[in-house]
Amino acid sequence: MTDTMPQSLAADIVPSYVCGAWWTPPQGTTGTSIRDTSTGAEIARVSSEGLDTARVIEYARTVGRDGLGALTIHQRALKLKELALYLNEHKQSLYDLSMANGATKGDCFFDVDGGIGVLFTMSSKGRRELPNSNVIIDGAVEPMSKDGSFIGEHIYSRIPGVTVEINAFNFPVWGMLEKFAPAFVAGVPSIVKPATPTSNITAACVKLIIDSGILPEGSLQLIAGSARDLLDHLDYRDMVTFTGSKATADRLRQHPNVQEGGVRFTAEADSLNAAILGSDVTPEAPEFPTFIRAVANEMQVKAGQKCTAIRRVIVPHALVEPVVDALAARLAEKVTVGDPRVEGTTMGALASFEQLRDVRAAVDSLVAAGGQIAYGSNAWDAEQRGAFLSPVVLKWDDNRVEALHSTEAFGPVTSVLGYDTVAEAVELAAMGDGSLVATVCSYDMGEAGELARGIAGYHGRIHMLNRDNARTSTGHGAPLPTLVHGGPGRAGGGEELGGVRGIKHYMQRTAIQGTPDLLTAVTGQWHRGAAQNRVGDPAFGGTPEGENGAIHPFRKSLETLQIGDAFVSGLRQATEQEITDFANTTGDVFYAHTDPVAAAVNPFFPGIVAHGYLLVSWAAGLFVAPGRSAVYANYGMENLRFITPVGIDDSIRVELTAKRITPRETEDYGEVVWDALLLNQNEEIVATYDVLTLVAKREEQALGGENTAQ
Amino acid sequence: MTDTMPQSLAADIVPSYVCGAWWTPPQGTTGTSIRDTSTGAEIARVSSEGLDTARVIEYARTVGRDGLGALTIHQRALKLKELALYLNEHKQSLYDLSMANGATKGDCFFDVDGGIGVLFTMSSKGRRELPNSNVIIDGAVEPMSKDGSFIGEHIYSRIPGVTVEINAFNFPVWGMLEKFAPAFVAGVPSIVKPATPTSNITAACVKLIIDSGILPEGSLQLIAGSARDLLDHLDYRDMVTFTGSKATADRLRQHPNVQEGGVRFTAEADSLNAAILGSDVTPEAPEFPTFIRAVANEMQVKAGQKCTAIRRVIVPHALVEPVVDALAARLAEKVTVGDPRVEGTTMGALASFEQLRDVRAAVDSLVAAGGQIAYGSNAWDAEQRGAFLSPVVLKWDDNRVEALHSTEAFGPVTSVLGYDTVAEAVELAAMGDGSLVATVCSYDMGEAGELARGIAGYHGRIHMLNRDNARTSTGHGAPLPTLVHGGPGRAGGGEELGGVRGIKHYMQRTAIQGTPDLLTAVTGQWHRGAAQNRVGDPAFGGTPEGENGAIHPFRKSLETLQIGDAFVSGLRQATEQEITDFANTTGDVFYAHTDPVAAAVNPFFPGIVAHGYLLVSWAAGLFVAPGRSAVYANYGMENLRFITPVGIDDSIRVELTAKRITPRETEDYGEVVWDALLLNQNEEIVATYDVLTLVAKREEQALGGENTAQ
Repeated sequence: MTDTMPQSLAADIVPSYVCGAWWTPPQGTTGTSIRDTSTGAEIARVSSEGLDTARVIEYARTVGRDGLGALTIHQRALKLKELALYLNEHKQSLYDLSMANGATKGDCFFDVDGGIGVLFTMSSKGRRELPNSNVIIDGAVEPMSKDGSFIGEHIYSRIPGVTVEINAFNFPVWGMLEKFAPAFVAGVPSIVKPATPTSNITAACVKLIIDSGILPEGSLQLIAGSARDLLDHLDYRDMVTFTGSKATADRLRQHPNVQEGGVRFTAEADSLNAAILGSDVTPEAPEFPTFIRAVANEMQVKAGQKCTAIRRVIVPHALVEPVVDALAARLAEKVTVGDPRVEGTTMGALASFEQLRDVRAAVDSLVAAGGQIAYGSNAWDAEQRGAFLSPVVLKWDDNRVEALHSTEAFGPVTSVLGYDTVAEAVELAAMGDGSLVATVCSYDMGEAGELARGIAGYHGRIHMLNRDNARTSTGHGAPLPTLVHGGPGRAGGGEELGGVRGIKHYMQRTAIQGTPDLLTAVTGQWHRGAAQNRVGDPAFGGTPEGENGAIHPFRKSLETLQIGDAFVSGLRQATEQEITDFANTTGDVFYAHTDPVAAAVNPFFPGIVAHGYLLVSWAAGLFVAPGRSAVYANYGMENLRFITPVGIDDSIRVELTAKRITPRETEDYGEVVWDALLLNQNEEIVATYDVLTLVAKREEQALGGENTAQ
Repeated sequence: MTDTMPQSLAADIVPSYVCGAWWTPPQGTTGTSIRDTSTGAEIARVSSEGLDTARVIEYARTVGRDGLGALTIHQRALKLKELALYLNEHKQSLYDLSMANGATKGDCFFDVDGGIGVLFTMSSKGRRELPNSNVIIDGAVEPMSKDGSFIGEHIYSRIPGVTVEINAFNFPVWGMLEKFAPAFVAGVPSIVKPATPTSNITAACVKLIIDSGILPEGSLQLIAGSARDLLDHLDYRDMVTFTGSKATADRLRQHPNVQEGGVRFTAEADSLNAAILGSDVTPEAPEFPTFIRAVANEMQVKAGQKCTAIRRVIVPHALVEPVVDALAARLAEKVTVGDPRVEGTTMGALASFEQLRDVRAAVDSLVAAGGQIAYGSNAWDAEQRGAFLSPVVLKWDDNRVEALHSTEAFGPVTSVLGYDTVAEAVELAAMGDGSLVATVCSYDMGEAGELARGIAGYHGRIHMLNRDNARTSTGHGAPLPTLVHGGPGRAGGGEELGGVRGIKHYMQRTAIQGTPDLLTAVTGQWHRGAAQNRVGDPAFGGTPEGENGAIHPFRKSLETLQIGDAFVSGLRQATEQEITDFANTTGDVFYAHTDPVAAAVNPFFPGIVAHGYLLVSWAAGLFVAPGRSAVYANYGMENLRFITPVGIDDSIRVELTAKRITPRETEDYGEVVWDALLLNQNEEIVATYDVLTLVAKREEQALGGENTAQ
């Protein structure tokens, strides 16, 4: 590490980053050792002794929240992308440290590049799917009065506190970033507390992040070492997101501030994840080797130290032996245990010597409960000095033994058990009492669907595998930033990631009731019924373009366009000839437009009606500004509903109102969503929809008419 | 109650309904008294002594889940409507019992009709917004491989257990139904545990429900009396939804099965809800009397025994006295405390004598902390015998006194306090440490928006009030079934209701990864890339209509239409003349279609392009079946995105595939959503969207062509 840390301690004590500075405990603090797990040599020590945690939280509450609050969702999301690019260029130092912790190059990729991938995804999801503001609207407006003066809807805004992110030892980089990234986009400051055995790697990553200068100060703090009395200073405004063992989750959940103080608490704990082989799969089917590869891979990656790894391999009874044999053959061929820095190593040491002890003890207890070691060994070769363990495959005479479904050996260990029926396979999977993920491998769509629906309630994720995605699947064990990660029961009951779902986890959902004007004021999005600036036909309350400086809203760039800017057209009548012509030119000869007898029998129409597509085309003709326009393109439409049919000689008019304006941070245009309201000559609603457009940021970018730039 | 209950006990012991039968404790059980709160007379007793709660849960797990699982979401939702209609006809008996508990007619309406309203809303929301199946898709498909063979999405399916619903005494009917209704639609059996003082009213409502015969057996059970060891038998599959005091919520949350066993637990506790009067409001403004009415009303309804009632009235310092005076005048004029069965009574007794004691003690402690009684009295008139208390308005010299923001008098009691700035108003509201709801009353949109955004993170609901919705607002204290109910911190941290959000609370969200065929098999909804039955142009893999029995999918009723049934058209070329004609006939003369110079400068277009509306019109012309059709109407469109522009002489073709089929339970048609894919001559995607149609259930309902029924 670098000169911003006290030189005398940099070599041994892992520093914390708090209150805008690097911090280490007083000279003479011994702390806990971090060892090279291949050689046993001490490489760092960790301690947070003497750290004033209350000050850390107060710093997040003030400096952290202020810095984040000064930015919009898009601005924060964009910073994540910058950070991802920066980390991508500086990741080798993280690889080096990770290898001393038993991580192979593949493991490093999973952790470091996986973490960077979360930054990229949260950045792009945040900018594509959320507004460029700090209030997210959730769902549709709920009408609450007949006259429209009282409506309701839901918003998300950031929780009023901070988040403490307590991570597991197995993914020091991904574990931090997958929690930090969504909290950051939400606008909530993070206090990261990594697991001690790999806190040096997390600290190195935080060092890169801080050195990058990209983040607003206070948005990320790091406590290396014990969390100490951190939770004592949290309250209902705050959130604790935990990944690790169930025992620690339970202990944290019992803290009075969680129990009674209203601290939001979410946990992701390892679980006894299953992989189920469908009854349709024979040893000759393409799914068989695909399944074996998936299971073996989960044992090998991170030496099986993944909360998502497969612990229970549930296969038809007749396939237990073939699966065990194939697994053994695959492991024998592919797995070479050793120091990841040594050429040819494909599986590293466990992440600590404590971990080695725990895994071996778990295997012993599985054996004591009836598990038979069908491949590998639970022995430790003391001469090797590292925390090495071979892959272990267990098989069972009794597939209901309690220990099989509850004892987790958090290493390269898995059990193979047999089932008779689909119902039994579901039951066995459920005996894990809630899991993060299960794989279902089958080429029988009916059975695969039945298995997935059967186990869905017990799982946070289901990974379905067969010959068609054998090559493209990202694998059983890989949580993806776009999908939720977490699971019920033993898996902790929490939920993380899932694209913008993960961002909303750090926000409070609030129902808002009021007038359209009030909801517009709260959300910054125009609501039907709120004040408008109406340009257009005076018969419908519009100021004609040019009068009193009235400008068609399509001519306004984002510099001048405001929500509520509206264009109101005059009426246009639908003639029978036009409907017929439209049917003939488009080919849309649906009977409701062409066959008066059938149209009249139809339960929804009075007789011949104009095509819906004709109405929206006419509406565009009514609202489009001829000539110069700041609108670049109409790129889509949402929520189109036809309400009142338009018959021959009925008329329509349109009201188009700027509803949501989303300037893009990185482009010279932005998205404008327009509320379109089609009415007939009786002021009945004909149709409603949202028109999606791209609009130039500056007036001089307008095109068309005499002023087109060339 | 009726002859299905043991006659000897019917008059005194409130029965439970468990395992398909009414149950009362052994003869001789004394139980707890329920008293007429106006007269003090004992009217019933309650006890669950001797009840085998494990059997109750097992019954829900088996009979209850089986019965609910045999129905779809729409079928269950429809039963709620039937139930609502039934209860509406039989509600007088609930009114009668409620009046003996101090409820005025208005209070009865709030509780009984409010509860019935939840049934109606959940029924209609469930049928309008959810699929007619048991798997709900959440959000968009996430692409996970370039070739489309590996995709992900999220589903909701019911949690694998039961729900225990523990309710508060103040709303014995609404409290039960607002929890039961969404759980029922989700397919999760309910075990209802009402608060003892009003369990006779809940039991009477359950009696009506059971007698109606509408619900599948086991979907609703009632435990009147102590919950006893109920939680000891729950596990991670189950859910406890609690409404009541924070102390009880904290106690339940500490149960080992919640702490460590993974039982899902959600709480809604009363909170110190605020009403904020904007700094723009003068005593002469229309908002002033509106605000006073709102506050007074919250004191009077249910004698202030609402978890949503206003406890802190936060007004500009200068308006403290005018507000107190106006409130006093209003209360003096409108509130007559007494037996609700006596003519002229506008506010009843508290719901129990224990409640009376608690409220009076709370007022005493508020006074001891510095509150001055500005209206009303904390005295109890023993001669009246009922649990009567007058409205009490407190004012405070110090607006920061801790007790003012933490001591809740759960009766007709409120405090008025002053603020200086908007920031201080937000801060004071937040001092409640999390609330269910706040009212913001202002006619200054800027300030109202600022106040609402400022307090949103601390609240589950914000009720915004001014002259424009003074008459239409449903009020501060009324949780609505379409909006979420709950709040952070002191309010319990839970969330209920909110339309289909409330239903999803009883479901597990699971990420599913697989091939389009696998996701189609799991969800019953076609996914792009999954198998199709392609009818149409053989150049694009279609079987021409008529060959090998191929039928255009528009001719298929819901009897024969399957997801994956598709029509593939041939190509249609776009000529310059057609684009020009379309511009002229519709009036859509946007420069991208008419001005080659401007179109070419536009950053998104190669030059003149066809109108998006022209493309979707042509697509309809390409996919519509001429003549006889089972499609009744195209009622809308969703998710339209234009991807690749179509220039002069480019061609388009369309692939239309039945994606989601939703038969309506009560109509002879259903909704069919079609996936529309527009491709150009180079197989590039031009546009994608969903076409929403109504399709006849039976073949003979088809219309058009020679076969039109007349």
